[in-house]
Order: sequence, then structure tokens, then C-alpha cells
Amino acid sequence: MLSARETAGRIAAGETTAAIELARSAALIDELEPKIRAFASRPGELAAGTGPLAGIACGVKDIIDTADLPTRMGSPIYERWRPRADASIVMALKAAGATVAGKTHTTAFAFLDPAPTRNPHDLTASPGGSSAGSAAAVAAGMIPLAVGTQTGGSVIRPAAYCGAAAIKPSYALLPTVGVKAFSWSLDTLGLMAASADDLSFALAAIIGRAELDASAANLKGLRIGLHRQGFAGAPEPASELALQHFRKLATEADATLVELADEAALAEAFHAHGPLQDYEAKHALAWEYAEHRDLLPPKLRAYLDTAKAATAESYDEARRVSREGRRAAHTAFREVDVVVSYAAPGEAPDTLESTGDSRFNRLWTLLGVPCVTVPLIRGPRGLPVSIQIIAGFGHDESVIAVAKGLEKLVAPVG
Amino acid sequence: MLSARETAGRIAAGETTAAIELARSAALIDELEPKIRAFASRPGELAAGTGPLAGIACGVKDIIDTADLPTRMGSPIYERWRPRADASIVMALKAAGATVAGKTHTTAFAFLDPAPTRNPHDLTASPGGSSAGSAAAVAAGMIPLAVGTQTGGSVIRPAAYCGAAAIKPSYALLPTVGVKAFSWSLDTLGLMAASADDLSFALAAIIGRAELDASAANLKGLRIGLHRQGFAGAPEPASELALQHFRKLATEADATLVELADEAALAEAFHAHGPLQDYEAKHALAWEYAEHRDLLPPKLRAYLDTAKAATAESYDEARRVSREGRRAAHTAFREVDVVVSYAAPGEAPDTLESTGDSRFNRLWTLLGVPCVTVPLIRGPRGLPVSIQIIAGFGHDESVIAVAKGLEKLVAPVG
Repeated sequence: MLSARETAGRIAAGETTAAIELARSAALIDELEPKIRAFASRPGELAAGTGPLAGIACGVKDIIDTADLPTRMGSPIYERWRPRADASIVMALKAAGATVAGKTHTTAFAFLDPAPTRNPHDLTASPGGSSAGSAAAVAAGMIPLAVGTQTGGSVIRPAAYCGAAAIKPSYALLPTVGVKAFSWSLDTLGLMAASADDLSFALAAIIGRAELDASAANLKGLRIGLHRQGFAGAPEPASELALQHFRKLATEADATLVELADEAALAEAFHAHGPLQDYEAKHALAWEYAEHRDLLPPKLRAYLDTAKAATAESYDEARRVSREGRRAAHTAFREVDVVVSYAAPGEAPDTLESTGDSRFNRLWTLLGVPCVTVPLIRGPRGLPVSIQIIAGFGHDESVIAVAKGLEKLVAPVG
Repeated sequence: MLSARETAGRIAAGETTAAIELARSAALIDELEPKIRAFASRPGELAAGTGPLAGIACGVKDIIDTADLPTRMGSPIYERWRPRADASIVMALKAAGATVAGKTHTTAFAFLDPAPTRNPHDLTASPGGSSAGSAAAVAAGMIPLAVGTQTGGSVIRPAAYCGAAAIKPSYALLPTVGVKAFSWSLDTLGLMAASADDLSFALAAIIGRAELDASAANLKGLRIGLHRQGFAGAPEPASELALQHFRKLATEADATLVELADEAALAEAFHAHGPLQDYEAKHALAWEYAEHRDLLPPKLRAYLDTAKAATAESYDEARRVSREGRRAAHTAFREVDVVVSYAAPGEAPDTLESTGDSRFNRLWTLLGVPCVTVPLIRGPRGLPVSIQIIAGFGHDESVIAVAKGLEKLVAPVG
């Protein structure tokens, strides 16, 4: 994979130029795109910007508005659509000097119907979803940085399946203005990169928060909670092995590991994700459903056929349960420095018909808390298997620091 | 003014039809528009829908996306702009049977540079802003219902200046998907109508919450807090007279009036509105500012020239103070049934160069709590002067019920 920090460092040292690095990414995309199918559209040329991310080619998920490129939402309904303005995140990328290398494939409206993208580790395996193109483009080494969105598990899951690092920051840390809404209480922008260290570098530059480029944590003395999310069902053996591997590494590094129980309030919050999303998706996609139902892909169409029955009562109850869950998480997170859990049920599904399962991601999206995923081991089919590091709302620097500390203990597996 | 409930009742009784009522609104718009200038664009014909709001012609503020009409944001930057999809609120209006009678003039991007709209009570006075066209169209009797948005005071203030009733519901009660963002933590959709009773009828129908069509409250025995918002400065005499008039009516109706102090946490939250909005507006309008600064009107341009210096630190502090304010409000609101305060500093400004002042509205927008305004008296220049009724987050039915109860005690002044 291409390292954003290393690339920027070489440019700063005069060993290369932003134009050369952008041309390198463009050539890599040209070469790998027929195989990976990560990009929905690309600009004619990549012009270098000015700032800490100058020379960094960035993929932007195709539900994010761009004034200079189509924004198709993964749907024929938006086939010829060109927004008027860039989304806030696109302007933030540009202000930091990054260059949009293209719009990356998304599942239609960021739901579950697969995008055309392939997993770079196995072209017959799922790259995950919904931010499939962003994860695959980074993991394939085409570009050092990509933007995705997560409403269930759409940043962490595809990154884990493709073996990229990713962060889903605290809710609304990255502004979602100009991002197609699916569920406004849940929709969260995130980043994919080659490593947690690269995420740290890029996130701090994009949002102008230097403290997010935190130093790697020394795991010694940290209290780390292990959370198996029993309410979400059991993982495949590969994900349990990844968690065990993490436990071994952290124990050897003199961290204190604590097994966390499945608190009732968190289990209830996990189950509130569905009704919360149903009500909001019904409103967010009301026009598409009313005017173009026949053009919606089958899973999304069936979902909205059901979601249209969502009531204000079930929504209010889901919001109440979510608030209780946030309170419980606030208390639970005070007892530990970070929490570690499965990033996904296992290796990427051995099919292009499914984008996998977000059940180990949905609770954290609902709570709005920051998550970083890093690949740790290889699974039985040779694909990367990742864990995710989670902290309390607003403690984005903690998940970044611990992920960077963990990276120092392992050989790259992405 | 045209009553939404009365219109719907006559249609249901067979005394008129939806088509006739829509034609009536269209004719009234044709007649009054040269004078009022409320509409930015209008459809060729008004087709009747099906549902409780069939026959109700509704104005939609021109920062709200419509697939069938231009959406100009009050700015030449969007002069020929036509969104792909209807905003969620437009779909909710249509699902309830209402018909979009046109897009109503907004100040550019809902900021402070005046729209071309006039105040129906005095064509040389301000209609307020930013939802100027929505308030004026309802107050002039062109249409029975209009949608606006409030980030500071942009629903309650123009309604008060024009003598219409209006509700700014709890934050996110009405979904803002497809509404041009200015400050995502503050932007709130609201409704204007002829009376609180009409608001109650329309809001319940639009959002499918029957309980919001609450019965009029009997003021007898209610505990009502009077809040003068000293931290926002003194009002003009007319607004103080309106509050005194409310006190007299409520006392005669055997309500218990309680003078509320200016709590420190609320005063601090009032002052946090600025830094919160600055940071979010900088991101929300980043494209317009970077690409089309010269096309921005002077007040907005100067504002963004300043807001670009907003830091993450000041934003985080403003969010912290906002959370403290919400906690303080939650406690304060427990002591009373509703709070009553000034809706605006006084009568509409005697100029078309200013949209007036949102200082008595900003705190409640920041807190996300529901507000209803109703006109109570006439000021020295003969213009309506209103109060606003406020309750705790989620208690929209309380402000509606009290406003309806109050309406029964006064002769219409709008």
C-alpha cells in the first residue's frame, strides 16, 4: 500500500514532487482498475494542491458531492448527476492540499446491494460495503487515502475485508454536508489508509486538529477492555483468533486486559439501530422510493418496502434506547483506556453477491464513538483479518494512539 | 389569512374541493405577488394531492431542494440550479396531500442580506429573515401554509414581524435532508400558518404524529415561566408590552406566572451560538466561499471572511457550553409547563435594508427546544408584535397546546 505520511515526507525532503506522486497514483489506477474496479469516475488529470497533503491522491466515495465529477450514488437514478457544489469533506481535502483521484464505487445509496468492486486479495471475494471502492483502492495500492461513510459498518467492514486501516471518527467530527443521507443520526464520514499512522497524519491535516496526529501509545500499563459483543452473535473462528492474537500482543507489551460483559443497555442499543435507521431511511430516500422504486436494486427496494411502515413511536423508542446506551458506554469507557473487538465476523465473504455483515460495527456507529481498524492476521483463505479499537465519544486521539502502538508490534498483513 | 384546518374541513364537508382551493391560492398569489414579492419560482399549475392536507397550497423556502422547481438559495451562484430529488420535508408535505405552491424567497443561504420580499402590513418595513417569503406569503393570505428554516431566528422572527403564527419544532423533528446547510447543529425546519391551531393540524399531518394536534390547553392552573433573556439585551417597549399583555391574559385565566432568572449556564449557551455557527458555516459554505466569494452578498461575505478563522478549539468549547446549557434548560423546564419570552426585539424594522435581530431566538435554537410564536398586540407603527412560547426538548405538544389556549383568549391581530 502507499503511505500518505511517507509520500508527504519524501515530497517535503525534495526526493520527489507532488506532481510525480499524483502521476504515480494515476498510473497505478490505470494499471489495476480493470481488475479491481474501484472507481466510478475519474478526472482528466490530477493537479497538485498546496498543503500538508499535497501529492496525496484521494478516493472519494460516490455518494459524496463533487462539482467537477459525477456523483452517481451507485444508482442509475443519478446516472448523469453532477452536483453544484463540493461537499464539505471534499473542500477540506482540497484545503489540506490533497487531490481527488476519482469517485469510488459505492453500493447503491450505501446500502447492501454489492458494488462492482473486487477484493484486491482475492478477486472472487467480497470487498465489503458500502465504501467498497475506497477500501479496495487503498488496499490495492492505487492511492494512499480514501474517504468512505458508515451508517452500519460501511467504513470499518470493507477496510477489514480488504486489509486497509480505517477510522470512523466520532459522530460529526468530519462534516457530512453534501453527503447523500441514509440515516442522519448514524451517517458518519471515515478515512481509509495504509496504516493507523497514515490515518493519523491525514485526519489531523484534513480537519485541522493537530492533536489527532497523536504519538503511538506504549501499550504498557494501558487498561484495555475486550468486548465480544455477544448480543451480535458469535464471530467466525478467524476473528476470534485475531482477538486472541491481540490479547497475546497486548499482554506481552504489559497492558492490562479486561474482559467486558455484555451490558443490557448496550445490547438494547445494538437492537435499536434497526428501527432508528428504518425511520430515517424512509424519510431520507423518500423521493427515490416514490419516484424511482423500479430502479432501486433488490435489497434496497425490499428494505424500503419494509421501512415505509416505520412509525414515529418505534423511532422515539429507538432514540430513547440509544441515549441510554450512550450513557452506559460513557460509564463503561471510563473504566478502560480503549475497548477492542472484532472488526467483522471473519474474512471477506467468498462471494461477490454479499457485502458481508455489519453486526460488530452497528452498535459503535449508533453510539457515535470512534473506531479504528487494523489488520492483524491472515485467515484460513489467506485474507486479512482485523480487530477494531474503540473509545468514548470524542476520544479519537486514543484509538489512533493505541492503533499506532499496536502497529509497532506486528508485521504488516494488509 | 387562510386557515389550513378550516380549508381542509370545508373540503371534507363537500363545500369546496381541493382543486378550487388551490386555484384560489394561485389567484391570490397572482394578485398579491407584485406587491409582496414572496415567491422565487412557481409551478405551472397546482395539482391536488391526496391526504389530510389535500387542497392546501404550501410555500417552500428556496434553500429546500425540489426536483420540479429551481432551488436558488437566494443566490446567483444557484441561478439555474435544479436539484435531482425533493427534500424529505417536500416529500412529507406531498405524502400528506399538500401541494407546493412555489419556492419562497430566502435571504442568500439563509443569512442576513435581505430578500426582495415586503412585509404585508407595511411595504416599507422588513418582513424579517431569513424565511421572508414563507412568512409574508402566509401573512398576506396567499397560502395557508409555508415551510421555513431557523438557524438563529429565521422562522420565529419573520413570522412575528409579519404577524403569522409559526413553530420551530424540536431539533430534527422535521428531517432536514435536502435542505442547504448553514450550521448543521442548529438548522431546524419550521412551519408558518394563520394560527397555532393551523400549525397543530399541519405539523401532525406532515410528520405523522397525531399527538401533535393537541387540544388547546386551559391556562388555568398552568405554571408559566416568563423569561426576559437579559443576556440578549433589552427589547423595545412594544415587545415588553406584548409580554405584559400575555401576563395579564394568563393571570386572568388563572395561570401561575413565575419570573425566571437569567441562569449563568443559559447566558453562556446564548453566547456559544456564535462560535458554534462560525465553525460549521465555514465548512458548510466552503465551496461557495472558495469558488464564488465575489457573488456572495456583502453581509454573508463579510461574515465568512471572519468565520474562516474559526478554530476547532473554539468550536469544541461552544459545544461543551451548549451541552451544559441543555442540561440547565432541562432542569429549568421541569419547574414550569412552558416558558414565554419575546419573539423579537419589537415591531418589524422600518427598513428593507435589515432583516431584524435574532437575539431573542438564538438560545432556543441552540438548545433545540420547541418554540411557537403568536401575534398578541399592535405596536406603535401598527405592526403586529408577538410573543413566543417555549418548552423542553421533545415537548412540542406543550407549546402547541398553550399557544392554542392563548389564541382563544385574544382577537386575531395578525
